[in-house]
Amino acid sequence: MTSLRLPPTRILGIDPGLRITGFGVIERIGSALQYVASGCIKSPDGSLPERLKVILSGVQEVVDTYQPAEAAVEIVFVNVNPQSTLLLGQARGAAICGLVSRNLPVSEYTALQVKQAVVGYGKANKEQVQHMVKRLLQLPGDPQADAADALAVAISHAHGGAAAGGLLAMAKSTRKRGGRLVSLPESKR
Amino acid sequence: MTSLRLPPTRILGIDPGLRITGFGVIERIGSALQYVASGCIKSPDGSLPERLKVILSGVQEVVDTYQPAEAAVEIVFVNVNPQSTLLLGQARGAAICGLVSRNLPVSEYTALQVKQAVVGYGKANKEQVQHMVKRLLQLPGDPQADAADALAVAISHAHGGAAAGGLLAMAKSTRKRGGRLVSLPESKR
Repeated sequence: MTSLRLPPTRILGIDPGLRITGFGVIERIGSALQYVASGCIKSPDGSLPERLKVILSGVQEVVDTYQPAEAAVEIVFVNVNPQSTLLLGQARGAAICGLVSRNLPVSEYTALQVKQAVVGYGKANKEQVQHMVKRLLQLPGDPQADAADALAVAISHAHGGAAAGGLLAMAKSTRKRGGRLVSLPESKR
Repeated sequence: MTSLRLPPTRILGIDPGLRITGFGVIERIGSALQYVASGCIKSPDGSLPERLKVILSGVQEVVDTYQPAEAAVEIVFVNVNPQSTLLLGQARGAAICGLVSRNLPVSEYTALQVKQAVVGYGKANKEQVQHMVKRLLQLPGDPQADAADALAVAISHAHGGAAAGGLLAMAKSTRKRGGRLVSLPESKR
């Protein structure tokens, strides 16, 4: 074996929102990816400061629980409604604060970058992203929509945000087993 | 004296921004206001997460230093440029996180409410706000523009955000001394 063995890196992906902030934790082991956890932080109705507090402490709790080494956050769209854009911006600010308050390095990716990295196609729809996340992480079922986006951001970061290189190399090391794509252990490649 | 004596309340006002976050600390003692401190947190160029971290930890430092009991934040305008609105939203989110992470109750006021409370006129300009902040807090000189806005938010909160009541009552207890408006001690009213 001549392949370079890097220590596993745990990556936290965040898909920010005012109502629901998705999170996904994966581990990059060499060129393979492994699912660790995913879910979402729901901020109930209430004053904006109260809701931001839920997002902040929710993200901090995820960091404390899963101890990622790096974080990646999706760059949110600007909305047609400026008031919604402002609200979403504040939610995203709170989520990033949850990460930087724990001294995590934070990278940012646009939806286009995420789709290109995960599906290889910038105009991929939500279902295609969900499907590829399930395949790349060998999940038994479809992940939740918000968690899928967060996992997709983490996957993009794991592959340096670049589309082709990482994921194509990875695709070559997978094969069908029992109807679903699986990653081969490095020893069998 | 039949007037109700309330214990002094220390209030922190915040005027959020991505480059400059103004802060102002005042104390409400009965119906009088007293200046405590003001200044601004400057976030240097850098990645957005780095800049949000400066705002978050800067606000936390102000809270830790001056130990306010309540906080008030100006509700920012939506900008014509959606990208700027998004950036400002994230900065405001970070500032609010600095407050709620220290368990401070946070109230929000629009610029209109602030101007009505401080100047008594919703369309007052920046100079009029600065001037009234200087008078109401008996400052020896004009406060910095960003700090003035933050002090104005704190003043609005001190008077329950309502225009007439508090400030008019206060105006009656002030008189000119040496060319500038001063507040009379309660015993002399």
